[in-house]
Amino acid sequence: METLKKQKFGIKTQKQTAAEWFKTLRNNICAEFENIDGEGKFERKTWLRDGGGGGEMSVMRGKVFEKVGVNISTVYGTLSEQFQKELPGADKDPNFWASGVSLVAHMQSPHVPAVHFNTRFICVGEKTWFGGGADLNPMYPVKEDTEFFHGKFKNACDKHDSAYYEKFSKWCDDYFFNKHRNETRGVGGIFYDYLDTGNWIFDFAFTQDVGRAFLEAFPPIVRKNMNKTWTEAEREHQLKKRGHYAEFNLVYDRGTRFGFMTGGNTEAILMSLPPVAKWP
Amino acid sequence: METLKKQKFGIKTQKQTAAEWFKTLRNNICAEFENIDGEGKFERKTWLRDGGGGGEMSVMRGKVFEKVGVNISTVYGTLSEQFQKELPGADKDPNFWASGVSLVAHMQSPHVPAVHFNTRFICVGEKTWFGGGADLNPMYPVKEDTEFFHGKFKNACDKHDSAYYEKFSKWCDDYFFNKHRNETRGVGGIFYDYLDTGNWIFDFAFTQDVGRAFLEAFPPIVRKNMNKTWTEAEREHQLKKRGHYAEFNLVYDRGTRFGFMTGGNTEAILMSLPPVAKWP
Repeated sequence: METLKKQKFGIKTQKQTAAEWFKTLRNNICAEFENIDGEGKFERKTWLRDGGGGGEMSVMRGKVFEKVGVNISTVYGTLSEQFQKELPGADKDPNFWASGVSLVAHMQSPHVPAVHFNTRFICVGEKTWFGGGADLNPMYPVKEDTEFFHGKFKNACDKHDSAYYEKFSKWCDDYFFNKHRNETRGVGGIFYDYLDTGNWIFDFAFTQDVGRAFLEAFPPIVRKNMNKTWTEAEREHQLKKRGHYAEFNLVYDRGTRFGFMTGGNTEAILMSLPPVAKWP
Repeated sequence: METLKKQKFGIKTQKQTAAEWFKTLRNNICAEFENIDGEGKFERKTWLRDGGGGGEMSVMRGKVFEKVGVNISTVYGTLSEQFQKELPGADKDPNFWASGVSLVAHMQSPHVPAVHFNTRFICVGEKTWFGGGADLNPMYPVKEDTEFFHGKFKNACDKHDSAYYEKFSKWCDDYFFNKHRNETRGVGGIFYDYLDTGNWIFDFAFTQDVGRAFLEAFPPIVRKNMNKTWTEAEREHQLKKRGHYAEFNLVYDRGTRFGFMTGGNTEAILMSLPPVAKWP
């Protein structure tokens, strides 16, 4: 009985702690992005989910960031029958709780990479796990930037487990792969899911470090490239690459699917889509 | 033995006849669209499918038609294990043969509806069936145009079976529904699939009439509206609606899925995507 109480208290605290961290990280990211942009300001919009929970979108349309969405959400309830088959543990107990922060930035300049970042804590029945990742999507890959981006996430991984970076960067390449075009979405980063080492504090600390790594990795790449000029042809190339990005998110992305399957907010889920894209 | 021979001869002729009709219809549609446009010309491009068959894309970028693709294809081979579960008859015999014509037009003017049309003849194992349909996608629905479009397909349906129009127009509304936005894609038309009355000639004649109905239905709507001027706000609205159109095709469309699942040509499959779209 005491153990059960402790466990329940433990899970409640875990949920609260994770959700608070995602919010803190959201605030830090938004502040940094407003600093970089110099003109745009994030607009906030909350939404409630039928069945439990909700979220808060933050979107900025600025001078450097053409459209960036930084969303947090905490949702809970019962998984649909169809979705129960797809998630570990859901066949035994279809109750779920999920909290996360999710970000996609589409930049004005074709010389500044688009980027995606997400971390989440998910509870289904008695199982709990962390997931997340970040991937860089340059229109014109620059070796130095790619290595810098990977390096920051490698540092975060290495602090926790020397096997993480190899595993999670490969997972990223495998996951962000547009099958019908036979091309990777971008130049990778890291991706992890179902992370449960049995030590919640350890996994949470790793997830926090992944968030901090994002803040170290992306802003310098933006600052380095944001003042370069570009040609109309480069812009066209960017808009075509964005078309492929939209394809990936609508056809393959697990987060989009999780959102649709759990009755999430469509506007928040599709915040990731580019402000303008071309299939010429 | 004689019966078997006759059957085999019959199916071969059916396949050939259907494929030839789709090509004839493609030619007629392309000719009519070039007439309307006055400037653009269709460009042809053939492709071969690994495993059997191939197709021919026709795409025009013109003054009236911003981007229109009219594709024909005839493909055959063995269905993937995953896809076998989804198609009738495939569990018994995974051999398939499919031929069709498929068209999507995205127009320069926000006052001219986008349109989709497709008809196909599919053989899986011993089962054969026709499918197809057309739906009108105006940015600003005009009652008169919607009724005109539906009227032409109703005529085609009524010639063959008095129950078809009610059934197939409802099917169209149900099928072209964007669930995550809780909105219909356009203003409907007809949609039918798995059509096999047991009388091939009857079903083929119906499918031909659906093709002819398209040629009677869409061109007059284009001609009526193509010379209207539009505002920048109307264009923006068009680009947002196109975003929803892209979502439907990538998330829900059965043809896109059939193409991806059977190793079709990505360029041909995604010809349906809009030349430019916005998610502002």
